[in-house]
Amino acid sequence: MPRYRITVEYDGGAFSGWQRQDDVPTVQGAIEAAAAHLNNGMPVTLMAAGRTDAGVHATGQVAHFDLEREIEPGTLANALNFHLKPAPVAIVEAALAAPDFHSRFDATGRHYLYRILDRRPPPAYTTGRVWHVSRRLDVEAMNEGAKVLVGHHDFSSFRATECQAKSPMKTLDRLVLARVGEEIHVEASSRSFLHHQVRIMVGTLKLVGEGKWTPADVAAALAARTRAAGGPTAPAEGLVLTRVDYGTAATQPEK
Amino acid sequence: MPRYRITVEYDGGAFSGWQRQDDVPTVQGAIEAAAAHLNNGMPVTLMAAGRTDAGVHATGQVAHFDLEREIEPGTLANALNFHLKPAPVAIVEAALAAPDFHSRFDATGRHYLYRILDRRPPPAYTTGRVWHVSRRLDVEAMNEGAKVLVGHHDFSSFRATECQAKSPMKTLDRLVLARVGEEIHVEASSRSFLHHQVRIMVGTLKLVGEGKWTPADVAAALAARTRAAGGPTAPAEGLVLTRVDYGTAATQPEK
Repeated sequence: MPRYRITVEYDGGAFSGWQRQDDVPTVQGAIEAAAAHLNNGMPVTLMAAGRTDAGVHATGQVAHFDLEREIEPGTLANALNFHLKPAPVAIVEAALAAPDFHSRFDATGRHYLYRILDRRPPPAYTTGRVWHVSRRLDVEAMNEGAKVLVGHHDFSSFRATECQAKSPMKTLDRLVLARVGEEIHVEASSRSFLHHQVRIMVGTLKLVGEGKWTPADVAAALAARTRAAGGPTAPAEGLVLTRVDYGTAATQPEK
Repeated sequence: MPRYRITVEYDGGAFSGWQRQDDVPTVQGAIEAAAAHLNNGMPVTLMAAGRTDAGVHATGQVAHFDLEREIEPGTLANALNFHLKPAPVAIVEAALAAPDFHSRFDATGRHYLYRILDRRPPPAYTTGRVWHVSRRLDVEAMNEGAKVLVGHHDFSSFRATECQAKSPMKTLDRLVLARVGEEIHVEASSRSFLHHQVRIMVGTLKLVGEGKWTPADVAAALAARTRAAGGPTAPAEGLVLTRVDYGTAATQPEK
């Protein structure tokens, strides 16, 4: 059976997360239902690079699945998009993959964008795409705090208590904040992240931006290696999975 | 009675346009209702720089109104935003204005952004904010076509048949297209625009981008001075009123 790799964009606000569940709309469920139409009605099972939480968006999620028959990738993308309507999910790219390609285990880099709307008035044009923070944040201080987190660390303080990863050791390759108009964009890259890691890092850096924490407090939280020491979890709606890398060139393999 | 000037952001998709109408949600109606709460329940009448159509968004609409009493502008903005919830309208700035300030008649420049999503797959993250055009457009050719329209012209071919402006003569100060990721951004600036002018210009330039029209065809359409000669009207949802200028420094007064 041929294997396909797809790049997926979605509005996370319309779904109870990526992972299939009974009786609630999920991204996986929507794409699997669309794919079954192209598989002689046979069920299709998707695996994704990142099982994003409810409310989290993607512009570059990657998933794979097998079909009974070979379909030209451009035709496959168009057909899936046809069957996905009107759900806010789009297959932005499709490709035939190697039979052993695995979207989750073969990923060598994951890239997230977190958007903060940093102004007094609430969002109206970007509703559902940003975390609204009324107070003016000190981005320079936040970048100092971010530097503390980059590198190979035990991220237990930045990990949801329900996180199922075997090890809390991760290598954070990049964590950079920049002001873009009225927004602050936080870009985070790693081979893989713990559950809620990006959102807890953002929630923690917001404390630094408000002057409630110093970068040294971030270092102390990291060293404490317990969730209680980290900052709050930033809301899902500001987060976007923008890209997944495959191939060793993209990032260093984790030790 | 003190006069206030407000800068307004909204999601046009949630409203039947700016202008107050009975029984349908409008931006003017929503803000007037919010303002009445701050005016001892007395009705408030808003005037806006541009009465945007149904579906058209704004990040920098400007309006003015009078209140019975003086309120500190920051407090006014916060109070309006409080009463506007949960409608997707935000007062992003408020200021005390001169008693004779007029948001519509004093405006010396209006700036619009039109967003085209130029890719095969439909939008999922930017739904309702872009015009989806599947075919790859030639932005260079579109910019050549745009140059034809810049300047002082009779824009009858780029004007809705129901347009109520006395004269079709307008000075288009700027019309520039640029690729931004998968989008094409069209920026248009003028002291004032005719009804649907930006959307008809964009719909016409799309024909150029597809290779169906040449820039010379745009010139011919302009010279024909009749709506039938112009291209189709691009959808409302891609359009955003981004800024309104006041003061003679911003643009040359029209002859």
